[in-house]
Amino acid sequence: MVRAMQRSSCAVGDQGRVLPGGSRVMRFESGFRWQGVPATEYKAPANHWCGILRTVLIGERGESTKFDVRYFEIAPGGFSSLESHTHEHAVIVLRGRGEVQLGDGAHALGFGDAVYVAPCEAHQFRNPTTEPFGFLCVVDSQRDQPSVRATA
Amino acid sequence: MVRAMQRSSCAVGDQGRVLPGGSRVMRFESGFRWQGVPATEYKAPANHWCGILRTVLIGERGESTKFDVRYFEIAPGGFSSLESHTHEHAVIVLRGRGEVQLGDGAHALGFGDAVYVAPCEAHQFRNPTTEPFGFLCVVDSQRDQPSVRATA
Repeated sequence: MVRAMQRSSCAVGDQGRVLPGGSRVMRFESGFRWQGVPATEYKAPANHWCGILRTVLIGERGESTKFDVRYFEIAPGGFSSLESHTHEHAVIVLRGRGEVQLGDGAHALGFGDAVYVAPCEAHQFRNPTTEPFGFLCVVDSQRDQPSVRATA
Repeated sequence: MVRAMQRSSCAVGDQGRVLPGGSRVMRFESGFRWQGVPATEYKAPANHWCGILRTVLIGERGESTKFDVRYFEIAPGGFSSLESHTHEHAVIVLRGRGEVQLGDGAHALGFGDAVYVAPCEAHQFRNPTTEPFGFLCVVDSQRDQPSVRATA
């Protein structure tokens, strides 16, 4: 179901059309990196998260999408903040194994598993394994800040 | 860079907060299917596309995201419409190999390769191999209709 479909304004002769150009292919490289796309440490270090790299595939290069696509990778033993916010997460696992806390429940995750984190659901991603745990995470580009909760 | 960050309305005591609940894990299954998520034939059959299955992971179950996440799988020899529209695509390859036409250029694609299709860029995904070619495709939930172009 498509929630809304308007007529395209790309037709030839439409004076108001957006011009083509600016598309790009981001090549996947060994180690789950993408050619020309930086992988950076996620947030300033703090005691409520640990060992996370973030690669922004869509959302920092002039796109007009209403979403950002990021790849997060959690090092062995690492974890994200236990946090909640009104914006939702769409997660798809690409690398390794890990787990997600959703409210009171913990769920093991592996390749291809997809997670929808609903508004205000407390959640945390963890890597209890000895290999990197990596996943795509799609969010609205305009979103609220997380509320961080105390971890065990 | 986060384009906009507002204060979360999930804090305890905030009367206007959205209640938690509704999160879900969609288990990946053999054959690139997801437990409980239907894979359906994409659009009514036509001569300008061929052999595509669509699985909607995010966007059809009451989410309030401003994006949809779909998994498309193109059968051997299949292809999508050559089309353009103002809305953008974010594509990440999960299965097999294929190629994308972007304007006048064709690009081979394999696991992990990511594609940004800019507004009004004519594009087509094709599978010239003997194995399925599958990819995630994220789009704005509110988007314009494609203009289909004649194929060779």
